[in-house]
Amino acid sequence: MARATPPGPTRTRLPERAFDERLERIRERLAEAGVDAGVWFGATSIEYLTGFDHIQTERPVVLAVTQDRLEITVPRLEVERAELNPRIDAIHHYRDYPGGEPMAVATTMLADLEAHTLAADAEGAPGTMGYQGPTLAEAAEVDISIETQDWVSRMRWEKTEDELALIRESARWANLGHRYLADFTTVGEHPATVSQRASMEASRAMLDTLGDRYVARTRGSGPVHAGYITGPQTSLPHGHTANRRLEAGDTLVTGASANVDGYYSELERTMFLGEPSDEQEHYFELMLEAQTIAIDALGPGVPISHVDDEVEAYFEEQGVSDLAQHHVGHNIGMAGHEPPYIDSGWGDHCNREATNYDPEDAEMAPGHVWTIEPGIYTETDGYRHSDTIAITDDGIEWVTYFPRDLESNIIDLE
Amino acid sequence: MARATPPGPTRTRLPERAFDERLERIRERLAEAGVDAGVWFGATSIEYLTGFDHIQTERPVVLAVTQDRLEITVPRLEVERAELNPRIDAIHHYRDYPGGEPMAVATTMLADLEAHTLAADAEGAPGTMGYQGPTLAEAAEVDISIETQDWVSRMRWEKTEDELALIRESARWANLGHRYLADFTTVGEHPATVSQRASMEASRAMLDTLGDRYVARTRGSGPVHAGYITGPQTSLPHGHTANRRLEAGDTLVTGASANVDGYYSELERTMFLGEPSDEQEHYFELMLEAQTIAIDALGPGVPISHVDDEVEAYFEEQGVSDLAQHHVGHNIGMAGHEPPYIDSGWGDHCNREATNYDPEDAEMAPGHVWTIEPGIYTETDGYRHSDTIAITDDGIEWVTYFPRDLESNIIDLE
Repeated sequence: MARATPPGPTRTRLPERAFDERLERIRERLAEAGVDAGVWFGATSIEYLTGFDHIQTERPVVLAVTQDRLEITVPRLEVERAELNPRIDAIHHYRDYPGGEPMAVATTMLADLEAHTLAADAEGAPGTMGYQGPTLAEAAEVDISIETQDWVSRMRWEKTEDELALIRESARWANLGHRYLADFTTVGEHPATVSQRASMEASRAMLDTLGDRYVARTRGSGPVHAGYITGPQTSLPHGHTANRRLEAGDTLVTGASANVDGYYSELERTMFLGEPSDEQEHYFELMLEAQTIAIDALGPGVPISHVDDEVEAYFEEQGVSDLAQHHVGHNIGMAGHEPPYIDSGWGDHCNREATNYDPEDAEMAPGHVWTIEPGIYTETDGYRHSDTIAITDDGIEWVTYFPRDLESNIIDLE
Repeated sequence: MARATPPGPTRTRLPERAFDERLERIRERLAEAGVDAGVWFGATSIEYLTGFDHIQTERPVVLAVTQDRLEITVPRLEVERAELNPRIDAIHHYRDYPGGEPMAVATTMLADLEAHTLAADAEGAPGTMGYQGPTLAEAAEVDISIETQDWVSRMRWEKTEDELALIRESARWANLGHRYLADFTTVGEHPATVSQRASMEASRAMLDTLGDRYVARTRGSGPVHAGYITGPQTSLPHGHTANRRLEAGDTLVTGASANVDGYYSELERTMFLGEPSDEQEHYFELMLEAQTIAIDALGPGVPISHVDDEVEAYFEEQGVSDLAQHHVGHNIGMAGHEPPYIDSGWGDHCNREATNYDPEDAEMAPGHVWTIEPGIYTETDGYRHSDTIAITDDGIEWVTYFPRDLESNIIDLE
């Protein structure tokens, strides 16, 4: 079942039509909700709708979308970057926070748009890095009506072909980073510096290959990241890279990704430095079979929780339930880790009134892009592959393609 | 005024007494508030009080501190890491989210602690990565009384000598990364790969120098980061590292830091690749003078807003107010960017009823650790140094020490 062939031609930048489609859908929602404007404070949602990305800090950014306008309130330091964006009709700004008055500027923007009834992603800006200003309603000089909505977070679940193409491109460069990581791994090296070297060389190859097609998204670093946790740290799902040089017999749990116009893939492998022991081989094969069972269970219309249940049943049958520490996977896209989750409780979660979800959200659907990563953790070592796999109209598409089998994941000592 | 001598012996790990002191202060607050327990959902606050760090995801972590116990609720995948922590008296866990019931486990933990009146940092877990479960009160089977508090966020403002020692150690490795960054910079190189190479070599030196004294805090990467934005991107305070090789005449805006047991420093320099033009030299000197004015204004008891006002007045006098895009600086510590802020509006902010702050929070105090980074941005280039400077009982301490003057920041073409 291991994939050995990278996918075909890919894309490095979202096309205009992606934003046209997103804004059209939002404007339909505005009409259905009978409100004048949609408002967003969340950086990822603002980027999803406009392509304008920014670092979410204590300085609020407020996006307003009406049926015919798209305007934004930003701190002074984002004005020139916002001006580069062709979709933004007008930019309003305040000097800085807390000296400036972001919500006063935003409510003036909304008043000028004649937007009195709003559907917003929150009542005000998040408390990131200590923002403590008023909510929109508190800042407004006239009565405004605000309902909250979660439209963008939900829209992000089903990726379009354009988005999937970016995730495929990410997987190509992640694969190269991962290849370098394996190639540079030798006994006596620092895990951290092997990781950094692999990231550097794969980033360089990506920059030189893509040229003008590369969309700059990092600050003072490269677009590809490949790294690992090694030896005893692998027994912890969220372990750290210790200051312990690589030793023969080490288990490695790798991770590689690349940022392609803001989208990510995820590739993880359990590897061994030198021939694995019988125990290492035993748990590797158990983990591999669990991942295969999960992947075989994927498809459109499948209850999401079913995939977790299948893996749990296998672990129980093999008597290793107590070595599993987490559910099978999550979605990936603009965030490296985003809902929905492959969890035995996902179906109940969608049926609870307290959540924003509906019963139909309990099923896999075309456009979902999953990480499939069941893990086993002994007292000394961890075992986890992660592949990125998309749900299609009639099945699945493997997005990551580094070989999964034991032989391919053993690094020769010489 | 440029500092050329690194500070003396430093520390790489917070001592036990740091946690003893923090918990003692929290227990005093509990007694004053007359509540049974303090509760925290925020990852940074939980780390501050216990030393247990974790990635904040959709899986809630809940810390409870009573007068004689410290207990925590975690997802299954954090159990073994939490067990390594000597300060945690008991660990409770749920399998995962949303299949597990984190708030049910947490409320049982609180009931067993006989904690019925609580002071919590929020009513429930944050919505990070899609958490949508109940609040604590909604999950409790018996009546509990919850008030919210911001104790840890506020306690973090005044760093102790132990914390400052970690930030000093961070500055040493940031300085080495920055030195390498300048040394590796040549015409025709990729900015991203120069950054990655400097980060790798400085990380290697840090790992080899500290040995067992190194506290692992990264996953698949090194502890030092040095990088820059270059050429036209420098005109944007939050620009990206473009895929454009270095050219003679480029302005570089650098940034370097290192993670020392979870603490950071910040070092930024405006550098030139080859001799600067008259315009570049002109704005560099203006920026340098603005930074000097800000640093001269620092000290215990100084109104925080005064420092921003002084820089604004200088920019106005020089006729470059329209080239400034942000306030002078922020605090730094466990987060790379944290309150309070050197902003002309800070004093009013503290006096507003809507904020959590008091009038005395408007002044600089011993233990504040500031980044001082006024910037000037023309249509083509940006100019910004950032130094990390601590407020002492009777003045200031320079924590970063890379030379600030023009000559030291020109990189020879050959």
